Amino acid sequence: MSRKINFGIMLQGAGGHMNSWRHPKSPVDASVNLDFFKATALKAEAAGIAFAFVADGLYINEKSIPHFLNRFEPLTILSALATLTSKIGLAGTVSTSYSDPFTIARQFASLDLISGGRAGWNAVTTPLEGTAKNYSRNHPEHALRYEIADEYLEVIKGLWDSWDDDAFLRDRVSGKFFDRDKLHTLGHKGRFFQVEGPLNIQRSPQGQPVIFQAGSSDAGIGLAGRHADAVFTNGVSIEENRTFSQRVKQAAVAHGRSADHVQIFPGIGPIVGSTQAEAEEKYQTIRNLISVEEALAYLGRFFDHHDFSAYDLDAPFPELGDIGKNSFRSTTDRIKRVAKEKAQTLREAALDAATPREGFVGTPDAVASKLIDWFDNGAADGFILGFPVIAEGLDDFTSHVLPILEERGYFDPQLPGHTLRQNLGLPYRESVYAAGAGAAEKARA
Amino acid sequence: MSRKINFGIMLQGAGGHMNSWRHPKSPVDASVNLDFFKATALKAEAAGIAFAFVADGLYINEKSIPHFLNRFEPLTILSALATLTSKIGLAGTVSTSYSDPFTIARQFASLDLISGGRAGWNAVTTPLEGTAKNYSRNHPEHALRYEIADEYLEVIKGLWDSWDDDAFLRDRVSGKFFDRDKLHTLGHKGRFFQVEGPLNIQRSPQGQPVIFQAGSSDAGIGLAGRHADAVFTNGVSIEENRTFSQRVKQAAVAHGRSADHVQIFPGIGPIVGSTQAEAEEKYQTIRNLISVEEALAYLGRFFDHHDFSAYDLDAPFPELGDIGKNSFRSTTDRIKRVAKEKAQTLREAALDAATPREGFVGTPDAVASKLIDWFDNGAADGFILGFPVIAEGLDDFTSHVLPILEERGYFDPQLPGHTLRQNLGLPYRESVYAAGAGAAEKARA
Ligand SMILES: Cc1cc2nc3c(=O)[nH]c(=O)nc-3n(C[C@H](O)[C@H](O)[C@H](O)COP(=O)(O)O)c2cc1C
Ligand SMILES: Cc1cc2nc3c(=O)[nH]c(=O)nc-3n(C[C@H](O)[C@H](O)[C@H](O)COP(=O)(O)O)c2cc1C
Repeated sequence: MSRKINFGIMLQGAGGHMNSWRHPKSPVDASVNLDFFKATALKAEAAGIAFAFVADGLYINEKSIPHFLNRFEPLTILSALATLTSKIGLAGTVSTSYSDPFTIARQFASLDLISGGRAGWNAVTTPLEGTAKNYSRNHPEHALRYEIADEYLEVIKGLWDSWDDDAFLRDRVSGKFFDRDKLHTLGHKGRFFQVEGPLNIQRSPQGQPVIFQAGSSDAGIGLAGRHADAVFTNGVSIEENRTFSQRVKQAAVAHGRSADHVQIFPGIGPIVGSTQAEAEEKYQTIRNLISVEEALAYLGRFFDHHDFSAYDLDAPFPELGDIGKNSFRSTTDRIKRVAKEKAQTLREAALDAATPREGFVGTPDAVASKLIDWFDNGAADGFILGFPVIAEGLDDFTSHVLPILEERGYFDPQLPGHTLRQNLGLPYRESVYAAGAGAAEKARA
Repeated sequence: MSRKINFGIMLQGAGGHMNSWRHPKSPVDASVNLDFFKATALKAEAAGIAFAFVADGLYINEKSIPHFLNRFEPLTILSALATLTSKIGLAGTVSTSYSDPFTIARQFASLDLISGGRAGWNAVTTPLEGTAKNYSRNHPEHALRYEIADEYLEVIKGLWDSWDDDAFLRDRVSGKFFDRDKLHTLGHKGRFFQVEGPLNIQRSPQGQPVIFQAGSSDAGIGLAGRHADAVFTNGVSIEENRTFSQRVKQAAVAHGRSADHVQIFPGIGPIVGSTQAEAEEKYQTIRNLISVEEALAYLGRFFDHHDFSAYDLDAPFPELGDIGKNSFRSTTDRIKRVAKEKAQTLREAALDAATPREGFVGTPDAVASKLIDWFDNGAADGFILGFPVIAEGLDDFTSHVLPILEERGYFDPQLPGHTLRQNLGLPYRESVYAAGAGAAEKARA
């Protein structure tokens, strides 16, 4: 078989667990520790993991989880990692609701050049209402955020095509620096954005940076179908993720794109032990890093920092009405649904949210088999590894799980190309102007 | 003597001259060539140059000069250089008229952490009207831009003090990650910005990143006096620069600051030859890299892309009325004044603007003496070296001029500290909360 499972790794503090910094193997300052970021990225790169992924947020308060309180900003840390690594892709989150497309087009294009074609942008619409208070404006509601995002992506892709691949002649003798016919001024005049262009940077070694999208609601699926090369979604169950994947790929096809050109990456937090019991023990160690009060605060963040501390912990999960609808909607809908299905108490739901396990807790063989199962059954094209504790999880995974996947023909530790697109099996992104005027007009229309 | 001359080096394509890319020693793609940036920064660092400086702009059109058409974005390239260098400061331009203080506070704080305290921000108000067309808004006029900048700087400094130096406890045993009493929520509600805070990143190893300012009009001087640690200004003549320096320092003193805590850096483009004749020859080679048409376009950019091609080249420099007043005002005022004083033709003024010499063309001894003259006479605390052709100028300068300055006691190739502030002789920037409540209130007022 030739198609392989692609992996990304989340770089978020000491790991995805809210108190990962307390784990004995973690550096306590991991979220702002360049050496730790570097060591993790290099280990992942050596193991054949295709990209590093830096999530982000633009609002904190004193209840936020530790690695959100104090963390590197994605574009700066990714640019730093670009020179410390040579093959691994470098993806990061930037909000379409709280940034300017001209600036972000430049920053990702610049990162892409610096890294030799390894940049990826996770375009999110920003779930937290409080963000507006840091940006002198109002928080647009869910549907509007996605309308803004759609136009934003159109603009940024247009800006990235400002210069044809061969626009820069740099002919010392004639003094001709560029070919005027290969410069395109966007002239975008839309509902939310008016952006003249051109962009002041050339095209990327991969045509354009890879676009990730991480909203999983209907609106998010629509956006992904139209624009995304890859989707980051919660890894919840093989059935749900398969349905989700089908919906995204259908949306892509509906927009005249190939289903293969939007790849689905569920986020999972594998915990591997030499026996199931050892894996369970590791899971318990991690679960014990938090108090139930902390778990409540963690749960609350998905619901736009809703305060759960007043509810009865051991009563059934409370009725919340519309709370959370304007925030991490797809996530909060699911938490509510599962709590109902499993008749969870608030305590159970909070601990589950703060220390999710999605079934990837087990022996190397069990975890590898499960990954293959998801992959073979269309629930995933790859996975984003959000190890609860990176210092433990990454080594366990690369030493014990990846070799099994390789043996079974599902993984190749040698990345096949130079750019992130090549390594994900995505085609070079041609300029709209490269395909001939007709196609360009069509694509722009 | 103990006070030394500090140097910065401009990283702008192949050099400050608009056609530096055509020089036989330059890489033609220098403005997007990471290896060239790296080699230049490392050479400068080895020579004891205190900081690298990346200027920026947010609007181009087909008449823009080559290294503006296609260049790295400052924050990304500086972050990349942070991991490739170890001592040199890393300063870059970001506009206060076209960015969000929360984002920029984070990005410079992040760069500062990544670089171990070497970050500097050149806060500019953006001279080019066309920028507005890339940012879905109107271009504020000169005075308003400076009012925005003033509030912006207040906000960003406030955000940088969100966490006290020792706010993060990271106590694994108790689980206490931070001390609640050492977290400060800004709550800024101003005329242009409403920013709640806190910032999601800790304070910098230098307290706060170094703030440069680069507008030289009266309003620019006022802004520098209130907020800047350093001022980047055109190096024009010892008399004018001395007057300028005095005015900035007086403005600082008027704001209750020490005159030593705002350092003046004229930008100069030295050209060094073993004899005066050789230096002149190098100057002519560079001057010959452009046509007079190109020089006109270069001149035009300062006047907000005014088109000079319709004027008579050999007639006296034209009357321009208010053209340029809302753009690079201090620069255009000076060009007009000098043209009148020297009775220049348009051709002469354009060639002078495109290939300025400010008198730093000569033998190593002559150039060194002149630098000392400026320094001793209060025209400069240091210089930003904008070599017309970096590939030639940097080696000439470090090999022949710096040793003379060292011998005369005006330069030490060993940088004295670790952070940019230390290397510039600027004090650690204490938090407003560190000085006791009274001082904090005062500083905030
Ligand atoms: C797996 C996943 C990862 C996400 N990562 C981020 C992130 O890094 N930063 C952020 O602001 N929002 C992030 N989000 C939030 C979404 O982008 C989106 O704003 C939110 O989930 C609401 O959209 P939805 O209802 O379409 O899911 C993430 C969401 C999901 C499901
Ligand atoms: C030496 C110098 C360097 C400057 N560097 C930049 C720059 O990198 N980017 C930018 O947009 N403007 C730059 N400017 C423009 C100024 O910040 C300012 O917007 C403009 O000069 C108008 O202000 P003024 O009239 O106070 O000088 C520079 C100006 C000077 C004098």
